[in-house]
Amino acid sequence: MTFSHKVKTILDHYESDNPGTKTNLARILLHGHLGGTGKLVILPVDQGFEHGPARSFAPNPAAYDPHYHFQLAIDAGLSAYAAPLGMLEAGSAHFAGQIPTILKLNSSNSLATEKDQAVTGSVADALRLGCSAIGFTIYPGSEYAFKQMDELRDLAEEAKDAGLAVVVWSYPRGPLLDKEGETALDICAYAAHMAALLGAHIIKVKPPTAHLSLPAAVKVYEQQDIPRATMAERVRHVVQCCFNGRRIVVFSGGENKNDTAGLLEDIQGIADGGASGAIIGRNTFQRPREDALQLLAKIIDIYKKVAH
Amino acid sequence: MTFSHKVKTILDHYESDNPGTKTNLARILLHGHLGGTGKLVILPVDQGFEHGPARSFAPNPAAYDPHYHFQLAIDAGLSAYAAPLGMLEAGSAHFAGQIPTILKLNSSNSLATEKDQAVTGSVADALRLGCSAIGFTIYPGSEYAFKQMDELRDLAEEAKDAGLAVVVWSYPRGPLLDKEGETALDICAYAAHMAALLGAHIIKVKPPTAHLSLPAAVKVYEQQDIPRATMAERVRHVVQCCFNGRRIVVFSGGENKNDTAGLLEDIQGIADGGASGAIIGRNTFQRPREDALQLLAKIIDIYKKVAH
Amino acid sequence: MTFSHKVKTILDHYESDNPGTKTNLARILLHGHLGGTGKLVILPVDQGFEHGPARSFAPNPAAYDPHYHFQLAIDAGLSAYAAPLGMLEAGSAHFAGQIPTILKLNSSNSLATEKDQAVTGSVADALRLGCSAIGFTIYPGSEYAFKQMDELRDLAEEAKDAGLAVVVWSYPRGPLLDKEGETALDICAYAAHMAALLGAHIIKVKPPTAHLSLPAAVKVYEQQDIPRATMAERVRHVVQCCFNGRRIVVFSGGENKNDTAGLLEDIQGIADGGASGAIIGRNTFQRPREDALQLLAKIIDIYKKVAH
Amino acid sequence: MTFSHKVKTILDHYESDNPGTKTNLARILLHGHLGGTGKLVILPVDQGFEHGPARSFAPNPAAYDPHYHFQLAIDAGLSAYAAPLGMLEAGSAHFAGQIPTILKLNSSNSLATEKDQAVTGSVADALRLGCSAIGFTIYPGSEYAFKQMDELRDLAEEAKDAGLAVVVWSYPRGPLLDKEGETALDICAYAAHMAALLGAHIIKVKPPTAHLSLPAAVKVYEQQDIPRATMAERVRHVVQCCFNGRRIVVFSGGENKNDTAGLLEDIQGIADGGASGAIIGRNTFQRPREDALQLLAKIIDIYKKVAH
Amino acid sequence: MTFSHKVKTILDHYESDNPGTKTNLARILLHGHLGGTGKLVILPVDQGFEHGPARSFAPNPAAYDPHYHFQLAIDAGLSAYAAPLGMLEAGSAHFAGQIPTILKLNSSNSLATEKDQAVTGSVADALRLGCSAIGFTIYPGSEYAFKQMDELRDLAEEAKDAGLAVVVWSYPRGPLLDKEGETALDICAYAAHMAALLGAHIIKVKPPTAHLSLPAAVKVYEQQDIPRATMAERVRHVVQCCFNGRRIVVFSGGENKNDTAGLLEDIQGIADGGASGAIIGRNTFQRPREDALQLLAKIIDIYKKVAH
Repeated sequence: MTFSHKVKTILDHYESDNPGTKTNLARILLHGHLGGTGKLVILPVDQGFEHGPARSFAPNPAAYDPHYHFQLAIDAGLSAYAAPLGMLEAGSAHFAGQIPTILKLNSSNSLATEKDQAVTGSVADALRLGCSAIGFTIYPGSEYAFKQMDELRDLAEEAKDAGLAVVVWSYPRGPLLDKEGETALDICAYAAHMAALLGAHIIKVKPPTAHLSLPAAVKVYEQQDIPRATMAERVRHVVQCCFNGRRIVVFSGGENKNDTAGLLEDIQGIADGGASGAIIGRNTFQRPREDALQLLAKIIDIYKKVAH
Repeated sequence: MTFSHKVKTILDHYESDNPGTKTNLARILLHGHLGGTGKLVILPVDQGFEHGPARSFAPNPAAYDPHYHFQLAIDAGLSAYAAPLGMLEAGSAHFAGQIPTILKLNSSNSLATEKDQAVTGSVADALRLGCSAIGFTIYPGSEYAFKQMDELRDLAEEAKDAGLAVVVWSYPRGPLLDKEGETALDICAYAAHMAALLGAHIIKVKPPTAHLSLPAAVKVYEQQDIPRATMAERVRHVVQCCFNGRRIVVFSGGENKNDTAGLLEDIQGIADGGASGAIIGRNTFQRPREDALQLLAKIIDIYKKVAH
Repeated sequence: MTFSHKVKTILDHYESDNPGTKTNLARILLHGHLGGTGKLVILPVDQGFEHGPARSFAPNPAAYDPHYHFQLAIDAGLSAYAAPLGMLEAGSAHFAGQIPTILKLNSSNSLATEKDQAVTGSVADALRLGCSAIGFTIYPGSEYAFKQMDELRDLAEEAKDAGLAVVVWSYPRGPLLDKEGETALDICAYAAHMAALLGAHIIKVKPPTAHLSLPAAVKVYEQQDIPRATMAERVRHVVQCCFNGRRIVVFSGGENKNDTAGLLEDIQGIADGGASGAIIGRNTFQRPREDALQLLAKIIDIYKKVAH
Repeated sequence: MTFSHKVKTILDHYESDNPGTKTNLARILLHGHLGGTGKLVILPVDQGFEHGPARSFAPNPAAYDPHYHFQLAIDAGLSAYAAPLGMLEAGSAHFAGQIPTILKLNSSNSLATEKDQAVTGSVADALRLGCSAIGFTIYPGSEYAFKQMDELRDLAEEAKDAGLAVVVWSYPRGPLLDKEGETALDICAYAAHMAALLGAHIIKVKPPTAHLSLPAAVKVYEQQDIPRATMAERVRHVVQCCFNGRRIVVFSGGENKNDTAGLLEDIQGIADGGASGAIIGRNTFQRPREDALQLLAKIIDIYKKVAH
Repeated sequence: MTFSHKVKTILDHYESDNPGTKTNLARILLHGHLGGTGKLVILPVDQGFEHGPARSFAPNPAAYDPHYHFQLAIDAGLSAYAAPLGMLEAGSAHFAGQIPTILKLNSSNSLATEKDQAVTGSVADALRLGCSAIGFTIYPGSEYAFKQMDELRDLAEEAKDAGLAVVVWSYPRGPLLDKEGETALDICAYAAHMAALLGAHIIKVKPPTAHLSLPAAVKVYEQQDIPRATMAERVRHVVQCCFNGRRIVVFSGGENKNDTAGLLEDIQGIADGGASGAIIGRNTFQRPREDALQLLAKIIDIYKKVAH
């Protein structure tokens, strides 16, 4: 938990932010086993909203309890814990000061038929719960993308004024994108870039595949011969698209939840590509606690090594 | 009406709420014959809005008078009385201080063709009428669900700031759900969980059936072998999905209005499953007052017994 | 214009209102020839908006002048005069203090194709024009009903805070209702009940027919054998649906504009059924002034008699 | 520019307005060659927005310059000059105090496919530009009419509070109206009446034809035998529909731009019918300046004569 | 960077603006190699949003870094730099005071299917980032044009109150326009005129072609014989349509990115037509830095010459 040259360099990239926001970014960067390395691992628990409680927690019923996740994130030495309003309300006093928290301000659910999300919390909620940041999801490409960006603008401005950091989940979907397109390299890089343009401090995207989607982009990727064979190459491109590394960008672990070795291999590639870190939910809290702690220790080790 | 260890434990679960909201939750938990047991029975009277006055009150015409319901709830020793604006305006001064009230802030009606509700009251209304809580209905799965969640967010935030409690009626419906699906166990548990995530203090759902609806959920319920043969098992699962019991969850009596024995059997099962209590309207005010008082006394007895 | 036991009883029913609103309700109940009887007759002139100026005023061209209606209402000894913004702006200073006025805040028109209304005035307008109440129309059953209820909620809350009374015109229409259904007894009673639930002080509905519309309601009306053969029986039911008589409910004169005897017979039936009074526009201002004064005198007499 | 009995009478009709608004109405009524006569001629220049710059100004290129129109209105001795934001911003300082101005707050354009307008300025803009009034167009009959009336309500209320006058352009169009219907006498009179009901101080309509459009209105016009053979008769009816002459109503010059004699004949008829004045744009600024000044002098003469 | 008679004349055209806005306009007009000439060249970098990062920056990867563009604009001696929120946040502190900046407040993207833009920043953002102006795009002709004009009205009013300048990108598109129509002379001139009417201080349009689009306009252009054979003639017409030269109007470089000679020829024509300057993005930052600096020097030279 040492303030380091690396953390200083990262904070310097947020040159337009007020000391409050820098302080909250620093809190995340200085917390846990990766504190001071410039790398971070975040636990996000919004799957109960997205997929329902049983699909999220039945494999490890202890996880029905909101306190479980706070304790897991703390014991694993993670950098921050992100969750929707109710989840944080149910533990923020008990665990006050033990881990930076991120209030996820919007959520979708599996009963919905629109590619949108409900805004379920506010900046004032984040402040009264002692959070360091707000979280917000956009769906670039969706018919609701402009509406979501409008919502994000208002919330991000209010959050920055209040000295909070802004974490944006950028998940492309919509009429122009098929399933493969949603994780295509050009689309993932574009989604990350838009989050940066929207003023995000921390950007969350899915690991990109080597697929390319938009015809106009395919041409450029091929002409310019942008490397994309390995995960590390693809992540390096995404990092470049986040203001050439001036923004923190974190990646989820992908879909390999039954293949721990494959998951760790992906994460190694992501880390090698220069990612700022991992944001990893179901792959941890759906395992028994001890397994989860071991897995998180391995992920932390990967990031420790790339940070030297 | 004794402050008890049980009430203290429940209030402790609302760790992020201000003393005002805790006080209002306590008012409900300490009131009536179940005061101090940690259990509660609420009388809701919004059926005039939902189904029309004659369908609601003609079977027992005394119930056309708003004072009737206040008096019934008081005489039956219930924990709280919930109703829309007009109903509370018509009796709140007369019965001031005699029973905690919940202002139901939105309502649908049988002439409407959209799966939405009108917002018919405000937090300021709740305060000027001396209420302890606001009530709000969401329809998870409806095309209006995101809109309703947005409305709830604003009202709940304002209510919490004003020291009121928030009661959420979570009634699934919409394109992905057939009639059977609306009360399926997975859907009911999901609806309850979403209400918890949205920051509800008290969650109201319908008693779940053993049916399962969402294909992705069916798989998990079967793999994890989640018990659902009896009402008690199903309710236990719903309670678990409300932050592992950290939130108060109450159940309506179901559709057995012509079969009192069946109704009481359902309620016994619900109580055995660990529910916080019952919210029961038409089954009471559509009977003669003496019958209603007897029925409510039996329900209260069931909850007294499970609370020891 | 004597303060009476009857007025006191009525005001007591508005137990949640502040002294400002009670004062304005009292102003209406104490004004004109019915002052103190607990009954009232209101002149509404929004037909220019709804049907156009020529269809409204050409039969009696003096009525093109806004002053005409103020003077008619004053000379006839009515209880109040209701009209849209422009009409009141054109006479409120001249006739200040001579008759309570109601600012009608929304209006439709015959050129429109949606079942909605425009909101054409504000509570601040009502205050600056010295009005005692605001008026607002809802169309229960319309695709715009929830929107209108939302608008009413905001305006009613603001009006009550400012010590004004709230008059709601409740006119059912929409996809589930055919022409006959719009004045069916069950629908009229339901519409009146919803206005009461929305917090109206004075409810305005059309005289109900013996027809029944909603299938689920038909069953109940037949099972419970709710009397509906005579106008008096039907009105008694509507009054009952307005909080068992705790709310003032007034009826328009119906469509009998060419049959004065029929009109007065209807009004006698309405009065016998316990209505609080009449709200009567075209049937008066489309006649020569002397005829109108005579007709209004007869209506006042009917209400005087039922009030003893 | 003398304050006269006629101006006093007109101002008295605006009995509910504050001294600020009366002052601004007076400024218009006292300005220019018609000052004190109770009549007025207004120059409106929003055709660049509605039809594009070349279609508006190419016939007389000097008119591309916003200063041109200020100077024309001043030199012609008109009562006021009305234009959208940019046009007034480009000359209001230079010509400050030389002629009353009206900020037109909404505009449509020929590239749009909806029968709506954008709101392109605010009451604050009108104040900072030293305007005497705001101008606003409604399209009664359009699918956007309720929305426009809602917008007008807010802007008019704000304008009146700020002591400005409100000028409403009322142009019927929409699903129920064919081209002929848009200028039919019943429709024009209805549109003018609605503007009056909405609280307009000055109403602008097109000269009505003898055509009748709404079937229900046709019946009344025929039964009541409302005269409509001559322009003067038709205008007299419209004036009657504006609160029996209690509101200022001005008429555009019609489509006769290539037939000055016909135009002046129309205007004579309009003036004979009791109109308050003319609002005339393209017919003036599309001619050479000297021609325009001569034409305007003739129009002023017509109004001077009818005013005696 | 000398204050000159030319700059004074231009500022005088903004006669209704407060000293704050005049100061910020002056900052732009006095900055860089064209400072004091009355001409300006702006670097806009929002292509990452519009087309994606790789399509924008891969041809010259140094341009992935937001600092690159600040430095390029400074080193080339440009008048101002315009970009969306994230781009300015990433460099505004580092380059504070070195070049006037314009915060682009709305943006579209290539994944969207609606002809709209998201509003991604605020006037408060522009102020905290030390900007001299806000930028906003409208799509005249789009189904969203009225909505965008409404948004612009609010933002422009707020910006002017805060002493900022307003730059409007006016890009016609929509149901009435085919691809050729979007850059037709009549449409381009109309789009520029609307921006002026909306209160823009600086108007940005694309170079017009000789094509004419709206049938009603074609007639006028032909009747009036408006010259449009050369770029200079067409630009002269557009300048005329911007209040006869009272507003600054700048042109993009067109699509000739692979043909520098053709590009410069276009720009020469634009400059000869009396344009205020160029706004040129992809044509510069997609070249190697030295090439870009040379190109910009040539453009600046062109404008220096026409300014004498």
